Amino acid sequence: MAKALYLDDLAVGRKFVTGSTTLTVEGCKAFAAEFDPQPFHLDDAAAQQSVFGRLAASGWYTASLSMRLLVEGEMTIAGGLIGLGGDMSWPRPTYPGDTLHVETEVLAVRVSDSKPDRGVVTVRNQTLNQHGEPVQIAVVKMMVPRRPAA
Amino acid sequence: MAKALYLDDLAVGRKFVTGSTTLTVEGCKAFAAEFDPQPFHLDDAAAQQSVFGRLAASGWYTASLSMRLLVEGEMTIAGGLIGLGGDMSWPRPTYPGDTLHVETEVLAVRVSDSKPDRGVVTVRNQTLNQHGEPVQIAVVKMMVPRRPAA
Repeated sequence: MAKALYLDDLAVGRKFVTGSTTLTVEGCKAFAAEFDPQPFHLDDAAAQQSVFGRLAASGWYTASLSMRLLVEGEMTIAGGLIGLGGDMSWPRPTYPGDTLHVETEVLAVRVSDSKPDRGVVTVRNQTLNQHGEPVQIAVVKMMVPRRPAA
Repeated sequence: MAKALYLDDLAVGRKFVTGSTTLTVEGCKAFAAEFDPQPFHLDDAAAQQSVFGRLAASGWYTASLSMRLLVEGEMTIAGGLIGLGGDMSWPRPTYPGDTLHVETEVLAVRVSDSKPDRGVVTVRNQTLNQHGEPVQIAVVKMMVPRRPAA
């Protein structure tokens, strides 16, 4: 089991990477059918007529796959990855066949004033495709516990 | 089929609502198993020991269900709901049994300088539970076409 990381371990500038995952047509369409049933996520012919030009993944599929990669990645926060919110952008679409991974950098670390046993860590999670192009940039705040007294 | 809405139809302050959906234990666990396999989203006993106190849905499940509600809701943008990014927060968890709907308000409308056939519309999508409490607040920018010349 990976070492649990506490707020005290997360200096600004620390970086983490994840493994990778490759999108399939079936995966993109199944997610879209359940959560984002728009023609350009479901149907090749309709997608060709859309702004995407070909079948594109839902941005929420990209987000959900990024979460999976993060959960299985190097950033093994004690108590789990618990996001409070953040700023998301999708600079370009993802398509079936794309291989994605996530690179994280710690941007800020703040101990809670009211609850000194924890704090908020701000990270930038960049999801990159096989060309190294960002397909999702998420600057998110996470709740992170402090290391318990020995 | 619902009337297609163009940028020209979306005045600041215009509001839209969606239908509702009720979370199930099975749905929460299935999503978590695929996209957010953390103990507090998968296992009742582990969740009781966590900050959530009981089995909670992944925030990405809340986000994905909110997208489904929006796609099937009143805001029938011409060409579809295409998000460019935005600011998200999860003020409180969602749990199995919660019934969610989304309320939208148009915050800003801007015609593109470089592409005058379209623009960017900023909306606040609030996902509310059955108590009227926000469980997700997303201020997002969407690409929206202008009404074609007659």
